[in-house]
Amino acid sequence: MTYCVGMLLDAGLVMLADSRTNAGVDNISTFRKVHIIERPGERVFVLMTAGNLSLSQAVISLLHEALEVPEGQPNLHNVANMFEAARCVGDATRAVHRRDAASLEAFKIEFNVSIILGGQIRGEPPRLFNVYPAGNFVEATEETCYFQIGEFKYGKPIIDRVVTRDARLQRAAKAGLVSMDSTIRSNLTVGMPIDVVTVKTDECRVSSHVVIEPGNEYFGLIRNRWSEALIQAFRDLPDPDWL
Amino acid sequence: MTYCVGMLLDAGLVMLADSRTNAGVDNISTFRKVHIIERPGERVFVLMTAGNLSLSQAVISLLHEALEVPEGQPNLHNVANMFEAARCVGDATRAVHRRDAASLEAFKIEFNVSIILGGQIRGEPPRLFNVYPAGNFVEATEETCYFQIGEFKYGKPIIDRVVTRDARLQRAAKAGLVSMDSTIRSNLTVGMPIDVVTVKTDECRVSSHVVIEPGNEYFGLIRNRWSEALIQAFRDLPDPDWL
Repeated sequence: MTYCVGMLLDAGLVMLADSRTNAGVDNISTFRKVHIIERPGERVFVLMTAGNLSLSQAVISLLHEALEVPEGQPNLHNVANMFEAARCVGDATRAVHRRDAASLEAFKIEFNVSIILGGQIRGEPPRLFNVYPAGNFVEATEETCYFQIGEFKYGKPIIDRVVTRDARLQRAAKAGLVSMDSTIRSNLTVGMPIDVVTVKTDECRVSSHVVIEPGNEYFGLIRNRWSEALIQAFRDLPDPDWL
Repeated sequence: MTYCVGMLLDAGLVMLADSRTNAGVDNISTFRKVHIIERPGERVFVLMTAGNLSLSQAVISLLHEALEVPEGQPNLHNVANMFEAARCVGDATRAVHRRDAASLEAFKIEFNVSIILGGQIRGEPPRLFNVYPAGNFVEATEETCYFQIGEFKYGKPIIDRVVTRDARLQRAAKAGLVSMDSTIRSNLTVGMPIDVVTVKTDECRVSSHVVIEPGNEYFGLIRNRWSEALIQAFRDLPDPDWL
């Protein structure tokens, strides 16, 4: 399983991904789910993937391969805007589907790959997309400024409560980490390290990429304080007087 | 969809269920999911159901019908202990499966019914079971003293953090309501009113059955205070200094 969340703010993009991959519960590995393609200062793309690892790796490989064909099809280095970039990602997903879906079907394996694409191309604001296994996609808007893929439910309530478009990057990253903490506690197949990538508006490059390893001091502090605060907040609620 | 949670404490049982049923998102109704069978002072059973409503109603009907056959098969009025009661519920589920599963299969409808059974028969402590669609079941233990069915993920973290076997009934009911609040906020197909049933240890009867309707003052208070406390707790967490 996987948990990734991408947030689009006025101040830029904040993208978080866990790094646990599992085939069953007895075969757990660490694979990075964040992939960056950039021409710093001109364009930047951050992709986060969930689903079948062989499929997501294939999609990412096709996107990289396409960069090497100078006069070929549209690729992430030559598209004019983020909408076209999302189409590139959708088309790569469809190419993998054409190649692999029937063979997987024979083994009753679902064609399962989801991708969050965030980024900015100079001349446009930053944009955020959720690309589905069928290669179609939706874009984040003013009202819904984040996407989650993978094991999203445990970590959704806190994002809903505190992340808005005008949030600072720090606040969004903090919310992402609290959300990740709730998910890691509840689902064994989501695990550390956690990648946290930020893209500040109009920098058109990765502004920071931090890898939070087990034992990270700040994340430990957040986990403990959040847990204590929840328990205290619960204690402070009045008991039902009808029992 | 549905959300039900049953908790087994030293002090007794606390069982909560929402009451929304939906066939698609455009056909939403209110059906009670809590069913009580008791001989007050001697034995009490509280059943909560999730899954296909036609199936759960059929299981409950069979359990009631069996009570009317005085010298017949084991039923909830004559079984000697809660383990045998859980077998009755499992057998009724299997009887419905034999009758309905093939016809549902023809319409690609899954045989989907889950039941939480809590109760006490005089001479035993209160016990709590989770009965699966196949009619098999598991029992709550010292380490894991609660079961959830239906849309369980949003409301699981708070139960995990605050409910232990030695909790008072009031505390468990409060935790159940906070858990229900998180679920109702996140999933449109879980909705009010909420049934809250308690069974105090050794009373062998329903000790209280409260129906929390929309506009309930206590539930409104819990919702608002919890929301405010979470937002405040989040604000109090230190921002990452590496951004």
